[in-house]
Amino acid sequence: MNRLRVLPLGGLGEIGKNMMVVEYEDRIVVVDTGLRFPTAEMLGIDLVLPDFSYLRERAADVEAIVITHGHEDHLGALPWVLRALGGSDAPTVYGGRLTVAMARSKLDEHRLRDCDLQDLAPGETIGLGPFDLELIHMTHSIPDACAVALRTDLGTVLVTGDYKFDQTPVDGDPADVSRLAELGREGVLLLCGDSTNADRAGFSPSERVVGPRLEEVFARADGRIIVTSFASNIHRVQQVIDAAADLDRKVALVGRSMRKNVGIGRSLGHIEVPDGLLIGPQEVEDWPDHRVVVVSTGSQGEPLSALRRMAHNDHRSIKLHAGDTVVFSATPIPGNERAVSETVDRLYHIGCNVVTTADTPIHASGHGYTEELKLMLNLVKPRYVMPVHGDHKRIHLHAELAAAVGIDPERVFRADNGLPVELDASGARFGEPEESGMIFVDGVDIGDPADVALRDRRMLSADGIFIVVATISEQDGSPVADTEVIFRGVPFVEQADRLRQEIREEVERSLARSAADDLREIDLLQQELHDDLAAFVYDRLRRRPMVLPVVVEV
Amino acid sequence: MNRLRVLPLGGLGEIGKNMMVVEYEDRIVVVDTGLRFPTAEMLGIDLVLPDFSYLRERAADVEAIVITHGHEDHLGALPWVLRALGGSDAPTVYGGRLTVAMARSKLDEHRLRDCDLQDLAPGETIGLGPFDLELIHMTHSIPDACAVALRTDLGTVLVTGDYKFDQTPVDGDPADVSRLAELGREGVLLLCGDSTNADRAGFSPSERVVGPRLEEVFARADGRIIVTSFASNIHRVQQVIDAAADLDRKVALVGRSMRKNVGIGRSLGHIEVPDGLLIGPQEVEDWPDHRVVVVSTGSQGEPLSALRRMAHNDHRSIKLHAGDTVVFSATPIPGNERAVSETVDRLYHIGCNVVTTADTPIHASGHGYTEELKLMLNLVKPRYVMPVHGDHKRIHLHAELAAAVGIDPERVFRADNGLPVELDASGARFGEPEESGMIFVDGVDIGDPADVALRDRRMLSADGIFIVVATISEQDGSPVADTEVIFRGVPFVEQADRLRQEIREEVERSLARSAADDLREIDLLQQELHDDLAAFVYDRLRRRPMVLPVVVEV
Repeated sequence: MNRLRVLPLGGLGEIGKNMMVVEYEDRIVVVDTGLRFPTAEMLGIDLVLPDFSYLRERAADVEAIVITHGHEDHLGALPWVLRALGGSDAPTVYGGRLTVAMARSKLDEHRLRDCDLQDLAPGETIGLGPFDLELIHMTHSIPDACAVALRTDLGTVLVTGDYKFDQTPVDGDPADVSRLAELGREGVLLLCGDSTNADRAGFSPSERVVGPRLEEVFARADGRIIVTSFASNIHRVQQVIDAAADLDRKVALVGRSMRKNVGIGRSLGHIEVPDGLLIGPQEVEDWPDHRVVVVSTGSQGEPLSALRRMAHNDHRSIKLHAGDTVVFSATPIPGNERAVSETVDRLYHIGCNVVTTADTPIHASGHGYTEELKLMLNLVKPRYVMPVHGDHKRIHLHAELAAAVGIDPERVFRADNGLPVELDASGARFGEPEESGMIFVDGVDIGDPADVALRDRRMLSADGIFIVVATISEQDGSPVADTEVIFRGVPFVEQADRLRQEIREEVERSLARSAADDLREIDLLQQELHDDLAAFVYDRLRRRPMVLPVVVEV
Repeated sequence: MNRLRVLPLGGLGEIGKNMMVVEYEDRIVVVDTGLRFPTAEMLGIDLVLPDFSYLRERAADVEAIVITHGHEDHLGALPWVLRALGGSDAPTVYGGRLTVAMARSKLDEHRLRDCDLQDLAPGETIGLGPFDLELIHMTHSIPDACAVALRTDLGTVLVTGDYKFDQTPVDGDPADVSRLAELGREGVLLLCGDSTNADRAGFSPSERVVGPRLEEVFARADGRIIVTSFASNIHRVQQVIDAAADLDRKVALVGRSMRKNVGIGRSLGHIEVPDGLLIGPQEVEDWPDHRVVVVSTGSQGEPLSALRRMAHNDHRSIKLHAGDTVVFSATPIPGNERAVSETVDRLYHIGCNVVTTADTPIHASGHGYTEELKLMLNLVKPRYVMPVHGDHKRIHLHAELAAAVGIDPERVFRADNGLPVELDASGARFGEPEESGMIFVDGVDIGDPADVALRDRRMLSADGIFIVVATISEQDGSPVADTEVIFRGVPFVEQADRLRQEIREEVERSLARSAADDLREIDLLQQELHDDLAAFVYDRLRRRPMVLPVVVEV
């Protein structure tokens, strides 16, 4: 019996690193390859990827990768996934035009230049083994966002990607509700729907309402205006540019990703900039304050971003001063609240005016609210539903919305990363769990979160490290040099020298005990030393630094 | 000329560790000794105290310490301050009854049993050298909160502490606006006013509105109810108890601070519990689900709190299950958002219903909103104003409120930690800054944030540590044992053995170079090794672990 298998490898029970594996007749299409940013506890970790071991094993069966849109949480893991699937021999990556352009730029940075990327116009259909793939145009906070329909002879799987039903998008091109309705009439077997704003009641405001609010804020400002927003939110940047042009202000783009994304957006015609409007960051100081708008990265308080640098008086070209107005045209992503509020507070300290979405609606979410999620369910009329893109709370709430529009709760699958839903002519059910979880990008390498390096760093970060080097004679195990005692990151203020001496004595006692027991094997000696010293140090400091004894025989 | 000096040592440009030094005729009264909790970057740090070096130097001049209320951000640093001021010889600590009871309990935990604590009834006046001290009854999210009036022959300083103007507090005892008005008529020279909610428009809701909302939530729950709130919010706990009693449910208090604070609250008559209502945590499982309310610590997602343990299925007596309703009767303190939302998500994963203040108003802030701050200004009619308890943003907004009620902006001092305001018959102005900042409690000791231990821990936490032990001959500097290469917290997956070997070779090269240069001093040898190895390791790993070479001569 033919069986469809839909396996989420990321984005369920979490916000970020979205990845979905759709499998039919042993062939696989991957929808999205997203990443997450590390939390504060992930010491020294650069990025978090979905554990895609499953794809590694099934590399030969992967027909294609489809990316719904160009945000990092849907696109960011692509270089690692492609490398695991054979690099330049990896399957083709499909997506909308901007999505493919952003993917290409990312792969270039990773020196993956020969991978096959193809953009696909919404409405076009291509065959991928047992699947027919079609992209459906949606609206989101980045252009060219698409839902993905994968048709098989068993039925259609529709993965929404991130979306909102913006009736008045800035580019005049609303989501293709007509095509969604058509798919609904044809019959959709499974809908995998975005749950990000399942906790926000009503309809999300249109991106277009942001422009006039920005203009009002701009009109009230006497001095310079600094607007920060997501660099990929090209329509937002367009609206900032329009407002600046209306008020006869020049625009400086600041921050690498801001310049890069506006460049890509211009080359694809997503963004229009009047001639002579743009100035370079180093020209800002040459213009009178009331003639300048700076558009900057850093809306999330990112440590090295342009705005954070400005707030800390550490930016190469731009020095903020009293009278500048800083406009946060974005809301903090959960987890970034403190970084953002620290940045805001630095700006107040400098004497800037700060305008945030708490003051006036200068941001619109890219994700639909409850009524839009219900509209999607009613348009598509899916037989089965799997809420995706959300922590357990949002998945729970999305499931309640499905119940509210009359979908039998038995047909709503609250899945989890690694937990597949299997569908065939007789129905649908959860399958056996597959390996899933996180992979950490840690410098040049990727590795397991259970990795001992991170565990060690956690221990080191909490209480530091003690290193003891004892040099003993090969003949009789007696000390032949002074014991070295080194500590790093261990707090003690006054008793350092005394403690060092006590530790030396403890080492001598421990070695003498071992010698008396005729213990001569280095590993065992070190183990004994470790246990004796750990107990001794805890007793003295009530802390548990890592204790690292090194015994050298000469 | 007589001069009053008002020196904030904490709570300005930040939220927490409030501390104010009021000085007249060389005598000092300290108002509040608060602490903060460390942020994620303060690796291994337990608590953050205000830098009170100034008080240490002036110990002989301190007349008294006054604590406005029993919250940690006003009381928590008391043990360290008292120890610095002479322990049992330190000056007397004054406060309301509950405040003093909580201070005593805290000092007991720190084995400071002989300190002099005195509770003072609001309205009573006592002389403290050149000051007359009077407490004024206020309302806040803990009973016995007071404003502090310090009268001198130059004028009166009024420190509000944390407050709201709750017209219908749970204990029926609103803030003493009449006394505030009287002080205003007499003339207040300087008002130091709470700025915490200077960014929230209007009047804060009364604590009393929470009770009926809690009852509604309780009435809708079929299974067990778990309410989490601040343990010190005694009136909130009272309202939970009342709602439970009305619905014929037993109440279990869970979490050490919850039991302790309810104990103190009962002994002082702030909380009334019907006979037979309380059950022990271990009895919860003996009662039918619909007969139980659990009141628990953990509203901030604290790692070791009772609720967090329950959410992770790790609590000794209580196992949560589907059908339990968990009520968050508190909002996250800035910085705790992620910990709280993680806890909430674990609860959803278990299948609990979760009710937060986003769903229904089951929390009321303890801090007045803008209209209450203005009311305070209008009641007290201060000649000068210093907004306190707030980051730069809130201090800025509070200053704007003062302007809005007609206070000359010249007379509003936006101070900073360590920046005193000096007042005399001719006016007021900023004085010279004093030492201020943070002290870290790190295990048993307190120390400076610039402390090398923390800096080391940051380095260790980011990239780990390399330790290299080279044993050389005292005679000619030649190696006499194999070089030991040890790494901890350094990520590299496949090349470990090869890298270790390469490092050994690099050590040999470096030592050979030093020998050729006739470099024999151990410290210099180690410095050379360090520089050579650091460059080598960075080149190989693109990481900068701490590099620690140990050269042993035998």
